[in-house]
Amino acid sequence: MELKGIMLSTITEHSLIEERDNILIGLSGGPDSMALLYALLEIKEKIPFLIYIAHVNHGVRGKDADEDEKFVEELSKDLNIPYYSTKIDMEGYAKLHKMSSEDAGRKLRYGFFREVLSKIGGGKIAVAHNKNDQAETLIMRFLRGTGIDGLGGMEYKSGNIIRPLLDISRDEIENYIEKNRIKTRLDKTNLIPIYNRNKIRLEAIPYIEKNFNPNIIDTLWRTSNIMSEDSNFLNKYSLNKYKEYMKIKKKDSIILDRNEFIKEDDAIKKRIIRHSINDLTGSLKGITSKHILDIVELFDKGETGKSINLINNIVAETSYDDIVIRLGNSEDRISYNYNISLGKPIYIEETNFFIEAKILPRSEAEINFKDRFIKYFDYDKIEGGLCVRNRLRGDKFIPLGMNGMKKVKDLFIDEKVPLNKRETIPIVTDDKNIIWVVGFRISEKHKITSSTKNVLIIKYVKA
Amino acid sequence: MELKGIMLSTITEHSLIEERDNILIGLSGGPDSMALLYALLEIKEKIPFLIYIAHVNHGVRGKDADEDEKFVEELSKDLNIPYYSTKIDMEGYAKLHKMSSEDAGRKLRYGFFREVLSKIGGGKIAVAHNKNDQAETLIMRFLRGTGIDGLGGMEYKSGNIIRPLLDISRDEIENYIEKNRIKTRLDKTNLIPIYNRNKIRLEAIPYIEKNFNPNIIDTLWRTSNIMSEDSNFLNKYSLNKYKEYMKIKKKDSIILDRNEFIKEDDAIKKRIIRHSINDLTGSLKGITSKHILDIVELFDKGETGKSINLINNIVAETSYDDIVIRLGNSEDRISYNYNISLGKPIYIEETNFFIEAKILPRSEAEINFKDRFIKYFDYDKIEGGLCVRNRLRGDKFIPLGMNGMKKVKDLFIDEKVPLNKRETIPIVTDDKNIIWVVGFRISEKHKITSSTKNVLIIKYVKA
Repeated sequence: MELKGIMLSTITEHSLIEERDNILIGLSGGPDSMALLYALLEIKEKIPFLIYIAHVNHGVRGKDADEDEKFVEELSKDLNIPYYSTKIDMEGYAKLHKMSSEDAGRKLRYGFFREVLSKIGGGKIAVAHNKNDQAETLIMRFLRGTGIDGLGGMEYKSGNIIRPLLDISRDEIENYIEKNRIKTRLDKTNLIPIYNRNKIRLEAIPYIEKNFNPNIIDTLWRTSNIMSEDSNFLNKYSLNKYKEYMKIKKKDSIILDRNEFIKEDDAIKKRIIRHSINDLTGSLKGITSKHILDIVELFDKGETGKSINLINNIVAETSYDDIVIRLGNSEDRISYNYNISLGKPIYIEETNFFIEAKILPRSEAEINFKDRFIKYFDYDKIEGGLCVRNRLRGDKFIPLGMNGMKKVKDLFIDEKVPLNKRETIPIVTDDKNIIWVVGFRISEKHKITSSTKNVLIIKYVKA
Repeated sequence: MELKGIMLSTITEHSLIEERDNILIGLSGGPDSMALLYALLEIKEKIPFLIYIAHVNHGVRGKDADEDEKFVEELSKDLNIPYYSTKIDMEGYAKLHKMSSEDAGRKLRYGFFREVLSKIGGGKIAVAHNKNDQAETLIMRFLRGTGIDGLGGMEYKSGNIIRPLLDISRDEIENYIEKNRIKTRLDKTNLIPIYNRNKIRLEAIPYIEKNFNPNIIDTLWRTSNIMSEDSNFLNKYSLNKYKEYMKIKKKDSIILDRNEFIKEDDAIKKRIIRHSINDLTGSLKGITSKHILDIVELFDKGETGKSINLINNIVAETSYDDIVIRLGNSEDRISYNYNISLGKPIYIEETNFFIEAKILPRSEAEINFKDRFIKYFDYDKIEGGLCVRNRLRGDKFIPLGMNGMKKVKDLFIDEKVPLNKRETIPIVTDDKNIIWVVGFRISEKHKITSSTKNVLIIKYVKA
């Protein structure tokens, strides 16, 4: 079957487009989004809907990007399709908000798409992710260790975003482009240094195709479909159980029936806890499987009065026949303090990270100042032993590049760190001073200089 | 925690060993199984059980293997542990039964272990699979496209096989061996050319560790644990539903309540069908996800009288409020016949394979006589068009290396092909003759010779 036919059945099967929908196409000008545009134009003859085009100039590689923009603008005029465009400062935004370029680009892009949607009176955003993108996503997530919920991959429909090309391979797109003599621009987004994804596409997949499975793209696409099915069922089932076992729901707490909860399998218990946290705080960001596991254990044991403090000010506790997930008050504040031994990673349970410290002579230390989570200190200026803890009232230090003392609290305010995050951010100290507010600033006094002989290297790494 | 401690908690958590159990250790003499032996000897002081040793000489690399055997025998004597050994002809068995050396080795090895168990009055077989083996298994299965049931990996306990080292990494084993100064033999099984697993271990994992995730072994071990949990829940839940919806179960058929069945999610429907087939025939061998999907569609539509014939003589059909999985009678026999176009793969739905044919000049054809599923023919001896079909009454041909005609039926008898398999085996013919009984024999008349100018290459490949 050719592209249009496959896409039509994808659209029908997953109810991606309905009659009279406004469909906003994110059009880079590259082969994927161009194929999406032309195939949607064909399908519009069967399902009447409205097409709009949006183009985002990412503000990288100046002239080329401007030409892409012009190309899409002229095309929209020729095809007589309403056209919207914007120029974003992806790199600047990434720097400012301390996120990867990829995340920054995505955030700004979808922000703009939503803006346009609200101008045109609502609708759906069609993006051009294809079967190969899906396979790449699955491999990345498998290597990162996501369970079945992640291995479902990108969804055909998530909120108002639709992905009509998800059943179509890059080869099929190229054939379609060639057969229909569609002019395209080289897809610049593929050249954006999304390091891991490019490595997966250019190295890992060809290696797998050659050595293990020549049909890996199709195989992983099937895997994603099966995983979605299983994961959707598990989430639906556990959501029903969550509602069934809920006794009370308030703004700052949720109480569940312990006697029913403990009868469930771990697979369901864990999901019920996730549903509770998500329901209470609107997000699962930062919640690790270790956190969930700890709560399951707490709830299983059911010792009245026992509780766990999690990140984001979340508290889990048991009380007779009740299990409770709630927002903490000031007494529940997290507090930790670990001694750091040189050469031996220390696990920080409260953040699910390791901290590692070692000493190297200046001549042997390879220094990379850009990494937020590896920092270098003049070892001979360190007084006494090292430890890592969360902030204490009145914490202050001289941040790198400054002359005077600054309160850690003020640093957090300047850096726009949300209140509930401030409690967990690790602070490395020696016996006298703060030497590093991890992820933010090292101390001016302890920085390495031309006279540094021994470098203390401290790494903060995900467990 | 050190090896013994981790192993003890694995044993306790998964109830691997109970008091007075007979534990038979498969001891190659390599580091893994030696660590297993010594750690079990330590643990025996906490949980009293009996240890037995079994060694299998795989009959490859003569002298070395004999020395391994002697090493294990002497060790058993020194430790005063009952010892059993056998010599198997792995390669011969593999050839005879047309299986991989790995599969043959596994079959013979476990066969012997079971024999020993029955001599000693029952018990459990302890094997030395570790965390790294588990990660390798997960990667292989992910690349092959298994869903969550496969990504659970090897189980801590399956039947009477236990895997106490599954939470322990290869590094931890090596440390234990070194610290306790345990003498080991180079583990020969790691050198047996299990091509894919060695490639995963020696190439893929180091590449992943370097580029994507330095903790990939731990990551995948966690994935396997989470996947097992989810998969166990789904299987338990769907097994209960299967029993709940079952109206009648006879020796040759199972009838389920269609009205209840169709209310379930696809994830559960598919598992209910698998449970039915497994319950009816004792196995799911050869059943693909395509088969299951076809049955779900049939049952969803529910047109009375419609049916599907599957491999292994299984029939699925609908009849009013009933859905039926049963063993077929003679009228249900599968029958298929597809024309083969050169250069274009033909999908054989009944076997879930593709067949592909192409022509190359003799000089350009690279020939590999060993592959059972790629065969070469003298194209100029082919008469008319090619087709592929299942066997017909009275089929016969001159098998390669013979002078006279032979019935396909007799070939199947000689090759010990089970009755229910014979119906689906593909037979490639030209307009006049059988040229290939796929997987078994080509025709003498059509083989390539020194005077062959054009080679017809036919491949039979898994879809």
